[in-house]
Amino acid sequence: MRKIVVKTQRSPRSVIGVDLGGSRIRLAFVGPMGRRTGRVLTVPVTDRALTSVLALLIDSIRRLQGSGPRPSAVGIGIPGFIHRKKVCILRSPNFPGWRNVPIRDLLEPRLNLPVLIENDANAAAFGEAWIGSGRGARSLLYLGLGTGVGGGVVLDGRVWHGREGLAGEIGHITIDPKGPVCGCGNHGCLESYASATAVVRSYAEKAGRPVTGLTARDVALLARGRNQKASAVYRELGRALGIAIADLLNIFDPERIVIGGGVAQAWPLFHSAMMDEIGRRAIRPVRLGERIKRGKLKDEAGMIGAAGLAYHRLGVKDF
Amino acid sequence: MRKIVVKTQRSPRSVIGVDLGGSRIRLAFVGPMGRRTGRVLTVPVTDRALTSVLALLIDSIRRLQGSGPRPSAVGIGIPGFIHRKKVCILRSPNFPGWRNVPIRDLLEPRLNLPVLIENDANAAAFGEAWIGSGRGARSLLYLGLGTGVGGGVVLDGRVWHGREGLAGEIGHITIDPKGPVCGCGNHGCLESYASATAVVRSYAEKAGRPVTGLTARDVALLARGRNQKASAVYRELGRALGIAIADLLNIFDPERIVIGGGVAQAWPLFHSAMMDEIGRRAIRPVRLGERIKRGKLKDEAGMIGAAGLAYHRLGVKDF
Repeated sequence: MRKIVVKTQRSPRSVIGVDLGGSRIRLAFVGPMGRRTGRVLTVPVTDRALTSVLALLIDSIRRLQGSGPRPSAVGIGIPGFIHRKKVCILRSPNFPGWRNVPIRDLLEPRLNLPVLIENDANAAAFGEAWIGSGRGARSLLYLGLGTGVGGGVVLDGRVWHGREGLAGEIGHITIDPKGPVCGCGNHGCLESYASATAVVRSYAEKAGRPVTGLTARDVALLARGRNQKASAVYRELGRALGIAIADLLNIFDPERIVIGGGVAQAWPLFHSAMMDEIGRRAIRPVRLGERIKRGKLKDEAGMIGAAGLAYHRLGVKDF
Repeated sequence: MRKIVVKTQRSPRSVIGVDLGGSRIRLAFVGPMGRRTGRVLTVPVTDRALTSVLALLIDSIRRLQGSGPRPSAVGIGIPGFIHRKKVCILRSPNFPGWRNVPIRDLLEPRLNLPVLIENDANAAAFGEAWIGSGRGARSLLYLGLGTGVGGGVVLDGRVWHGREGLAGEIGHITIDPKGPVCGCGNHGCLESYASATAVVRSYAEKAGRPVTGLTARDVALLARGRNQKASAVYRELGRALGIAIADLLNIFDPERIVIGGGVAQAWPLFHSAMMDEIGRRAIRPVRLGERIKRGKLKDEAGMIGAAGLAYHRLGVKDF
């Protein structure tokens, strides 16, 4: 990726990056070099109805504005399928009632600011490519291991959207056609092995009992305490991830593959199983250490990436 | 892909396209609009040693030259891994003794013509994108089902090579981690289901006996005659191909996916199983009929594509 230089006349100096999730909104000012300026404002989402979320978004952005300079734009990372031309949210797993929501056009007049919307995993991919673990890479594939598994593709500093705007659904490539049922209805998608949901389900299966209230983080703590079943869960996750990454290397031979999201915090628990499987399945596994990286921006990748995309929209051409 | 317009001063009007295989060399003159002019010269390869193949290549090109105008360049599609910077063949499954062969530099002085070399599946992908089933598509993924399964990626009219020049090894994405052994040593690669070799092996397994001398084409003939075992072989091939194509759609959402190579001749025997599996596994299976196509250039795709790439090298910039 070429160096990013802000070249606009007005030289935007501040943009608000927003990470809209199903349970909370997180937002912060982000400078033109990708550095967050000031604190992250976190607002819980209690009502997922469209009007409530819109009101909460506007209110949160105004609250944050009160604390800093007037921003030049707002960039928002949103879970779900976004129609590229109509700039609307087709549907979102986190907001089940939303259908064809023209969220940009709903927000811009009320905020009186340009608004950029992007799928949250694409935004995170862009963030990592911009100033994270993918900095300097011409091509980057991103995997975000969270409640589900999201993904993003960045080529030459731009998010690759594909024909229908659906590129990057890496969570739904097949690992084993007879594998566990996935949220999408299929069997054996990467998401059914490598999401937080999958970690908990797999641990419950191995423990042979329901594990109400347990999180993927709890399973990681158990694995760190040398619990055999919990350790096996993360090794299996590593193998599934390794198969997916070998696929990506074989198809695309990218410069960088970045693994982010909450589950990536358990990196030491799955890294070696993942690398073994990649070594076995990539057609020519060279320079893997420098090409396969853990996300650097952690849970701020989407927020920072969305801000970066807003800078881009403001006329930062030299990406 | 934008329209291709020849803009060089000298306006190259003829290029020789060569398809170098393990058992034969095929070559022909190709015009600047991708049309083959004159017949295809086919020369059997009896000795695969480097010096013999080089001599045969030079002799064949000279023989073809005798029959037509002086070409402006030669484009050669070659099976194997090609080092982008050194422009040499690292290794080739079809020519086992070859290691780090600087084939361009060996041929150019003796032919006194610019020579362009490219992996054969990449060349075929480019050919289909140029004037075949991928014409007009901004992004194309190609699968060549032959003795093995090759692949190629074309973005904005250019072959995508990736970090190490290994992009497009789509034959080695995993369909089932516990699947049949592949030529690469792994289990369950696409190639172990969808190559001519796999068709014969799978039929022999179902028949419960060795089937010496039988080809994938013979198995297709049996399937057309309603042989149950042969039909099942092609249905399984369709399902494996469907899983791979759903992966490609989910990761990359390309405009076009083109399936070529000899095994693609059996299209009616696997098409419906393939489409069913794609419908099941693609995250949003839209416009599949116009996006997933059988190769149009058949066994000339590599030869024509190699010629197209040679035009490109001659200065055809507006791809």
